[in-house]
Amino acid sequence: MIIALDAMGGDKAPDINVEGAILAVQQSDNDILLVGKQDIINKQLEKWSKSYTFPAERIKVVNASEVIEMGEHPANAARHKKDSSMAVCCKLVSSGQADAFVSMGNSGAAMATSLLYLKRIDGISRPAISTSFPTVSGRCIVVDVGANVDCKPENLLQFAIMGSVYCQNVLKIERPRVGILSIGEEESKGNELIFEASKLIKNTNLNFIGNIEGGDIPKAKADVVVCDGFVGNVFLKSSEGVAEMLVKLIKNAIANNPLYWGAVPFLKFAMKGVKRKIDYGEQGGAPLLGVNGPCLIGHGKSNAKAVKNAVSFAARYAKSNVAEKIAEEIKKI
Amino acid sequence: MIIALDAMGGDKAPDINVEGAILAVQQSDNDILLVGKQDIINKQLEKWSKSYTFPAERIKVVNASEVIEMGEHPANAARHKKDSSMAVCCKLVSSGQADAFVSMGNSGAAMATSLLYLKRIDGISRPAISTSFPTVSGRCIVVDVGANVDCKPENLLQFAIMGSVYCQNVLKIERPRVGILSIGEEESKGNELIFEASKLIKNTNLNFIGNIEGGDIPKAKADVVVCDGFVGNVFLKSSEGVAEMLVKLIKNAIANNPLYWGAVPFLKFAMKGVKRKIDYGEQGGAPLLGVNGPCLIGHGKSNAKAVKNAVSFAARYAKSNVAEKIAEEIKKI
Repeated sequence: MIIALDAMGGDKAPDINVEGAILAVQQSDNDILLVGKQDIINKQLEKWSKSYTFPAERIKVVNASEVIEMGEHPANAARHKKDSSMAVCCKLVSSGQADAFVSMGNSGAAMATSLLYLKRIDGISRPAISTSFPTVSGRCIVVDVGANVDCKPENLLQFAIMGSVYCQNVLKIERPRVGILSIGEEESKGNELIFEASKLIKNTNLNFIGNIEGGDIPKAKADVVVCDGFVGNVFLKSSEGVAEMLVKLIKNAIANNPLYWGAVPFLKFAMKGVKRKIDYGEQGGAPLLGVNGPCLIGHGKSNAKAVKNAVSFAARYAKSNVAEKIAEEIKKI
Repeated sequence: MIIALDAMGGDKAPDINVEGAILAVQQSDNDILLVGKQDIINKQLEKWSKSYTFPAERIKVVNASEVIEMGEHPANAARHKKDSSMAVCCKLVSSGQADAFVSMGNSGAAMATSLLYLKRIDGISRPAISTSFPTVSGRCIVVDVGANVDCKPENLLQFAIMGSVYCQNVLKIERPRVGILSIGEEESKGNELIFEASKLIKNTNLNFIGNIEGGDIPKAKADVVVCDGFVGNVFLKSSEGVAEMLVKLIKNAIANNPLYWGAVPFLKFAMKGVKRKIDYGEQGGAPLLGVNGPCLIGHGKSNAKAVKNAVSFAARYAKSNVAEKIAEEIKKI
């Protein structure tokens, strides 16, 4: 697979993207198109080639004269910066020169740019960002986690269909349990959006299990959970924050009491495994569901390893043909 | 202080409430009015008196012929069950026979009942449930965590004022930093509700620090965080769920590898301290801000210790006169 990687996206761009591309070609058979300001990228490649041995011919640099910054207004940036690294990546995917687009940059802009150049799937009114959240026994797909902040019931219905298709084809769960994120398990709990969206989802052939509480996602009570992008984003970031806090509190509790120091060597290893399980960087990016072409959006705080993982995941995601399968399902409604 | 305790509220009622009342009179100087079905409560008291020695004269049973169940429609239940244990508790507070009302029952119904009998503070359009969330360095007041699922900007403004007064008088923080829960730190991030509410809060003399992400609450970046009750509830429950999952994952990682078993005795103590810090039961209940009279709503899953803690906290909360101080602040706007 050939992955178009936005070299200019993310808090630590272009460094981590160039290093991530090197790790990707070292450790997988995917080829990389590094897209962005040619001069800067070439200098970076030269710098990193001192620390790494890698098949340099499998990384090609594609110039893009503009950069969309992290704080820019997504829609405006996408519309006006026609030669941004994101725009060039999308054009490479739509022309078939690349199989997937990966960016660690401004996620709103990555979405707006994908929409502009890859276009939405026929029948999808709003694409959505999905994330695969860790649970006690596996993963749960949460859609949307930030693309759409003011949703209508029909949007949530489409998120349910897209999430289910994604779950079937990437997580290989035949009949995913689809829940709707609400504030109580009972059908009477929720807000207007939840009540209306539930009615719509019930009328499909999805395996709809009704309301799911935030606390039940880590308990693996559903395989797919749909929500408004505002709520999903709060869910995602709070969860990360709480996990970080807890690890810190445990570390502090141990550091502050010499009686516990005996636990340190054991705990270090145990925590490493747990951290790997809950680390967003392990998948590297979240697929943007609903556009014609594989597009992965990563965390602005990503490191090179996360970029490498995103490239691998993008290849796997591209192979699964989720976009085509979503198009088929949407036609049925 | 005299606390009116809803004996019939919660998943494990009346057992845990009666046991909690006994622990409360054993361990504090607060008196309890145990409100609910007299016969059942008396039998419970008899049962528990075999396991506990306590000043029985400091628990009085007050009869209430009706019970509001956990799954009942809050507003309907409050309106129709005029002799529910919740209604009787509120009447005891409004008549001055009790200083505060505590319930582990149907939280929507506890709120609706309080509104009906204690009435809202003049100028407050919607009371809100506040919770004190653990952070790496202390506590953060989050308002609303479930009372109001479809909010208007003015509601969030009032939550900010109420949360700030509460934080000043109970957490003793002189000039609390007030944030609004959103999906990015930048002012441009959020939804319509956030944009409009932010404008309103900016125009007050509150120490408004703008957008706060879910992940920044545990990092102690704000003392008060306001949000729609739907979002706040998702935040709260997700955080609890993630914390539980993490503890489970750590325990599993250790249990599955004999090499880590050496850590168990140390870890047990360290985790106990951490658990106490993040346990909702430590405060026992969340104040309902905006009604004329102290009202505390606890978790349906509460145990006796949580009930005991709720009673202590209710006494402390009643002494702080938050309701009167909120009324003063609202008048200024």
